[in-house]
Amino acid sequence: MSMDEMEDFRKTHYTKDIIPELIGKEVILGGWVQNYRDLGGLKFIILQDKFAERQITLKKGVVSNDLFDVKVGYQWNIMVKGIVKEFKKAPGGIEIIPSQIKILNKTPQKLPIDMTGETVSELDIRLDNRVLDLRSKKNQAIFRIRSEVINSIREFLLKNNFTEITTPKIIASATEGGTELFPIIYFEEEAFLSQSAQLYKEQLCSVFENVFEISPAFRAEKSHTKRHLCEIFTLDVEMAFANMQDVLKLLEEMIQFIIKDIREKRLDDLKILNMENKTIVPKIPFPRYTYKEIIEKISTEFNINVEFGEDISTEAYRKLGEVLPGYYFIIDWPTSSKPFYIIPYKDKPELTESFDLQKGYLELTSGGTRVHNKEYLEKRLEEKDLNPISFESHLRMFDFGMPPHAGAGLGIDRFITVLCGLDDIREAVMYPRTPDRLTP
Amino acid sequence: MSMDEMEDFRKTHYTKDIIPELIGKEVILGGWVQNYRDLGGLKFIILQDKFAERQITLKKGVVSNDLFDVKVGYQWNIMVKGIVKEFKKAPGGIEIIPSQIKILNKTPQKLPIDMTGETVSELDIRLDNRVLDLRSKKNQAIFRIRSEVINSIREFLLKNNFTEITTPKIIASATEGGTELFPIIYFEEEAFLSQSAQLYKEQLCSVFENVFEISPAFRAEKSHTKRHLCEIFTLDVEMAFANMQDVLKLLEEMIQFIIKDIREKRLDDLKILNMENKTIVPKIPFPRYTYKEIIEKISTEFNINVEFGEDISTEAYRKLGEVLPGYYFIIDWPTSSKPFYIIPYKDKPELTESFDLQKGYLELTSGGTRVHNKEYLEKRLEEKDLNPISFESHLRMFDFGMPPHAGAGLGIDRFITVLCGLDDIREAVMYPRTPDRLTP
Repeated sequence: MSMDEMEDFRKTHYTKDIIPELIGKEVILGGWVQNYRDLGGLKFIILQDKFAERQITLKKGVVSNDLFDVKVGYQWNIMVKGIVKEFKKAPGGIEIIPSQIKILNKTPQKLPIDMTGETVSELDIRLDNRVLDLRSKKNQAIFRIRSEVINSIREFLLKNNFTEITTPKIIASATEGGTELFPIIYFEEEAFLSQSAQLYKEQLCSVFENVFEISPAFRAEKSHTKRHLCEIFTLDVEMAFANMQDVLKLLEEMIQFIIKDIREKRLDDLKILNMENKTIVPKIPFPRYTYKEIIEKISTEFNINVEFGEDISTEAYRKLGEVLPGYYFIIDWPTSSKPFYIIPYKDKPELTESFDLQKGYLELTSGGTRVHNKEYLEKRLEEKDLNPISFESHLRMFDFGMPPHAGAGLGIDRFITVLCGLDDIREAVMYPRTPDRLTP
Repeated sequence: MSMDEMEDFRKTHYTKDIIPELIGKEVILGGWVQNYRDLGGLKFIILQDKFAERQITLKKGVVSNDLFDVKVGYQWNIMVKGIVKEFKKAPGGIEIIPSQIKILNKTPQKLPIDMTGETVSELDIRLDNRVLDLRSKKNQAIFRIRSEVINSIREFLLKNNFTEITTPKIIASATEGGTELFPIIYFEEEAFLSQSAQLYKEQLCSVFENVFEISPAFRAEKSHTKRHLCEIFTLDVEMAFANMQDVLKLLEEMIQFIIKDIREKRLDDLKILNMENKTIVPKIPFPRYTYKEIIEKISTEFNINVEFGEDISTEAYRKLGEVLPGYYFIIDWPTSSKPFYIIPYKDKPELTESFDLQKGYLELTSGGTRVHNKEYLEKRLEEKDLNPISFESHLRMFDFGMPPHAGAGLGIDRFITVLCGLDDIREAVMYPRTPDRLTP
């Protein structure tokens, strides 16, 4: 297959930048052949780049014969030099009359997935050919929204005096106590991949007060559901001089801010995903239900019995999501079901100052008020059958004036799943990792 | 040790927000006791929070006797309710006359590191007590600069139409060919921690064109130098329809932009670090030297012989840094010393379109033009004694119209080391990971 060299060709514009003011001007575009048609004396190439599409029109006699005879195929990578021309019938009212086309890379005649959008290929085949798959209109919309959400989170937190932290992903001890960790061979020592920035963000709120991190976290859960991944992307927030109530307020304001932002900047993408009437700005405050109220509701309304202290089953959550389709908090979870760093209520030690943020059936966030007194934290570790000695380097930081603090972790992939109305969390991630998938 | 509860106390302001307009108003501050003095009938507490300090003044007869008798210690965590008062002799011309002080957490009488700044404790002791250490003026300056640099990188790249990507850190095959990787036990399979986003960023520039990622990367190097870490924080950039020359231009513009930004927003922090006359905006373009020119220079000027194809020794780099103290590129490295994905020159196959960006003796960045033709990439893998079958899922992405592309990786920790004039890279990271250090 002979291909052209790029040489000194450089894009002068993206497709989105080809505005009426450029009519009559020469431009160079680059991208992929989304579609092409041959009507005999007239040929069209629809060129797609990272932003949008433009029509390239080749008319016999108008362009050189050599150029008219250029062959292209679906998703070939090309660059086009040409003049911008007004043409009412072309998409956007503009076409490009080319003077030169460079074929930079080709594709096999049969592509492994359908790029016309007429049929949707199976997700595993799409993931195996992810680069091609990501060029679809739907995926372009999903990942533009994802990018905007991450920016929006940063904007909201930075303007609220949060400091962005970066904490290690290779850790010596288990945050929550040992399960669901990936072991690493760290020279001659055993180490683990971090499940969450929990301990580090707590430590750092004793320096920078309000802190956040957006980073990967790793969960060795052999779950084959549409809600679980082995490598997730999470937001961790922690606030000094704060308790659970302050975190609930922060989170609902943040979610409202993000959705406002997405609707303002990415409404076209929500429309591509048919979510423009579903991903709407939620009213705040979000309803708060206690764990006790929720298990009573589940028992009364769906006849599913949950003993105090038990987890709520997926089935019960699904039913709950039908009657509570919006955002809501479940607060005051049993002490037995929460990790050592969550504080029990003084007057009701069987309950903790903890919460989950739900969107319908899906848990997006867990958090709560933390223990900030060192002696009490040691006691809590022992009550959870954990050895304080394994947490020595963490506990030491509680010697230096640890403030009262509270925080939460938000699963960004799950949040994208919700915002984009996706059926499977793997669609919210460029390269998902599951127990069965390590490539591409 | 009896301590107070925070209860409904909430900070109304940070220290930095206590401006003359607030004189006469009641405020609540929170933070740590940086210093305190007892002059008999007069006591001062210097309260430090994430931004700055304020003086709390307790005068016998002015404040209640109970309050006057409150005991505090270094780095205790406290909240103070009081009235803002003008007082010319106080730092910033303002003092706080307290009506209530809450002691939220205490410290041992003897702190493990000196917080007055008079003596500098050994780095390992500082790292063992990192929370305390991070409250020092110097560290506050370093990490404010670090945070600003990361923001500045994002701002520069987003405004240049780059897309922020998130790629997996658990990978199935070795990017560069197998050395220096941390193995993970991934259920029943072998996997590794990602050394760089190299393969993924190349794939994604075939979708999003210009892409970047700021993320951790993992290097199992048993180096005990002041320049190496086992977990680093890197910027990966990749540009479609571009070659090395475009990346050189992008990088020098980005570095100029970042330093301008830091000088504008964080000049006070540069002053704390005595770097205000050293971290200055560099002129662009940066000088470009070929590898051949550099090894000749090393031979002529320092009498150190480097055979063509050999690495440049640390000693030679140190000498080079003395005569080339600024930013400069070393381009056109030998094909034998560069990974398979770097493209050799057509007319001189012993050299590649590759570069390092140096600041004095320190390498900050490596990059170059990549191979975008699949057959050629397979050939390059074989020439490097790598098995194309191990790279099957990566190679497949080259079937779908991969554009010509080029890119680079920048070590953010090293860059911070340079900008802040630090002696040891561990000072540029909140929680460094080295062969000997996995905690805190």
